[in-house]
Amino acid sequence: MPEAEATTSFKAGLDGIIAGESAICLIDGENRRLSYRGYNVADLAEKSSFEETSYLLLKGKLPSSAELEQFKAELLKARYIPSQILAMIALVPPHTHPMDMLRTLISALSQHDPDVADNSETANFRKATLLLAQAPVIVAAYHRLRNGLQPIPPLKKLNLASNFLYMLSGEEPDEYSQKVFDTCMILHADHCFNASTFTARVTAATLSDMHSAITAAIGALKGPLHGGANQEVIDVLTQIGTAVNAVPFIDKMFAEGKKVPGFGHRVYRNCEDPRATILRMASKQLGEKENDTKWYEISQEVEKYVISKAQEKGKPIYPNVDFYSASTYQVLKIDHELFTPIFAMSRLAGWCAHVMEQHANNRLIRPQAHYIGERDLNYIGLSKR
Amino acid sequence: MPEAEATTSFKAGLDGIIAGESAICLIDGENRRLSYRGYNVADLAEKSSFEETSYLLLKGKLPSSAELEQFKAELLKARYIPSQILAMIALVPPHTHPMDMLRTLISALSQHDPDVADNSETANFRKATLLLAQAPVIVAAYHRLRNGLQPIPPLKKLNLASNFLYMLSGEEPDEYSQKVFDTCMILHADHCFNASTFTARVTAATLSDMHSAITAAIGALKGPLHGGANQEVIDVLTQIGTAVNAVPFIDKMFAEGKKVPGFGHRVYRNCEDPRATILRMASKQLGEKENDTKWYEISQEVEKYVISKAQEKGKPIYPNVDFYSASTYQVLKIDHELFTPIFAMSRLAGWCAHVMEQHANNRLIRPQAHYIGERDLNYIGLSKR
Repeated sequence: MPEAEATTSFKAGLDGIIAGESAICLIDGENRRLSYRGYNVADLAEKSSFEETSYLLLKGKLPSSAELEQFKAELLKARYIPSQILAMIALVPPHTHPMDMLRTLISALSQHDPDVADNSETANFRKATLLLAQAPVIVAAYHRLRNGLQPIPPLKKLNLASNFLYMLSGEEPDEYSQKVFDTCMILHADHCFNASTFTARVTAATLSDMHSAITAAIGALKGPLHGGANQEVIDVLTQIGTAVNAVPFIDKMFAEGKKVPGFGHRVYRNCEDPRATILRMASKQLGEKENDTKWYEISQEVEKYVISKAQEKGKPIYPNVDFYSASTYQVLKIDHELFTPIFAMSRLAGWCAHVMEQHANNRLIRPQAHYIGERDLNYIGLSKR
Repeated sequence: MPEAEATTSFKAGLDGIIAGESAICLIDGENRRLSYRGYNVADLAEKSSFEETSYLLLKGKLPSSAELEQFKAELLKARYIPSQILAMIALVPPHTHPMDMLRTLISALSQHDPDVADNSETANFRKATLLLAQAPVIVAAYHRLRNGLQPIPPLKKLNLASNFLYMLSGEEPDEYSQKVFDTCMILHADHCFNASTFTARVTAATLSDMHSAITAAIGALKGPLHGGANQEVIDVLTQIGTAVNAVPFIDKMFAEGKKVPGFGHRVYRNCEDPRATILRMASKQLGEKENDTKWYEISQEVEKYVISKAQEKGKPIYPNVDFYSASTYQVLKIDHELFTPIFAMSRLAGWCAHVMEQHANNRLIRPQAHYIGERDLNYIGLSKR
């Protein structure tokens, strides 16, 4: 094939390219509908729990009462990290971003797994259960240690999401905060072949193990074009500081050629991300409940202005999952650097499900490059160069 | 599009799909030619050094004498790991495979980088230089510690490859061994959009950082369908034990439906991997030099038999880069579990070059999935389930 032809025959960033089959998640952009294993996430967000949703993603079906109880019991037992892992956390310099810590420590956890190389469904499900329970413990322990505080042991009566909030502050969150945070985790639990999930699948497709794939995914999620955006949103909201400052601040960003984080998504080009719709409401109601509506109000101003400016240009843009999760976490008084690790704690459910699906029907993922470099150069020795 | 059509419209494993442009590496399968930045690897293997080849991959051109001297000086200075990293290595349980250790410790190194989030060419080149120098130090230190021995400080007069062999045993390798091992590292330094490099690029494309991308790549390389195969080759050769056992052993593998590791490659379907040609010769000559030809002889028997059997079936197959690197490393008396980490130490040069290329002209790599799961299920509460 002539080069000119080959050049036009690929899609940058694999945009729109189907990279494989999956039975986990369906994005129906036109109908603003996202579903996990056939269930609308709007229903799951309202009626399910993060534990049940994780089971659904991993096992492909909703659990019976007995199955859910057993899964929850295993998650409770797994809220434990080996002493060497705690010692490693203590060696992480406190200036380190928690995502760089988490990537390292999740990788280290494989050293304590009894069968690292076992990629069977049984072993992978066991590893997924452990990781789901361990990640919040690690994130909370590091948060405490870097702030000169002792880690707080988990509280058995709390579910995974609420226990995380408890381990950060030592205070039990109120019931509404518990529900909102659990909903946030459900909404972040999967999103098809997003960049971090795809990274996990490319890794798993060499028949590498669960921990390698999840470690890789955390590294990918960190980037500001992916999960890192939720921290960028709160940074912008904090700099704006008050609703009346929103328009001039965004104008300044536009003038400097900057993108406003929390807007736009490759798979929701002509409609709003359905997760954003739910999170907007959660952010509003939580703010009202907690008497802290400032962050929702700033977010509203930013949203209205960004959307109107995009409409003027004829290029519609909508808030994505990162935009209203930022103001929600802010009202929950969560440290800004924990926003992306929370995304990781949630997406773990989907990552593990995708690794299991990849291992169950594997083929090495190995594309090609279109070569645009030099050809047929002669190596000339250093003395004659 | 009807589902049946969509199903056939994708290539499993992105086989043959172009995922982007690159000016780093060209595989010309038909002419059995592999080149880095336009230079034939056969020439580089013979005339260049791993240091010079790394510079070529990272900078896109061969260095002048002064540039190479400066690069070597920086690599020498970077043969240092922070005390916290050494303390973390000491916390790794000694049963841990060195790849799981390396993935963790490379990730941890980001915690000591002065500008983790800086993805500029300057910062990335600096990070690449550090990683190239640090990885062998980490691998050797862990190898010593898990065997109850003290790590050996680097020897300034030795180049990167030879110093690694020295840090393993405390003995300076002879001149021929030095050259052979350096050649092996050159031959493993890059191979276009292979699975680990592609993992690094998908990670970097979220604008995540160098350490995240390299950590991800190590996880992908580990798999037996990728870098992990070189350890599998030596395991098979060791089990065969002597040349006359080769045919019955391979027959037994075939009868059990097993694949013989070290054969076949997606991008060299109808010819031999040019790296295998060079490594076969290196394995032979090193064996003769060291008076240890057994591993070459077993390899020869395996190769002849696997090729003849494949020809009988009309499906030609050839040895790949993993096959003759195994017997070569074995004659160099390298521990089997270090074979894949050596692949990582070498491929680091290519990985870093690809991350720099991705960051220089970035677009998020985010494909789509063909959905084959359930649709429109109704969520039913636990009590009614």
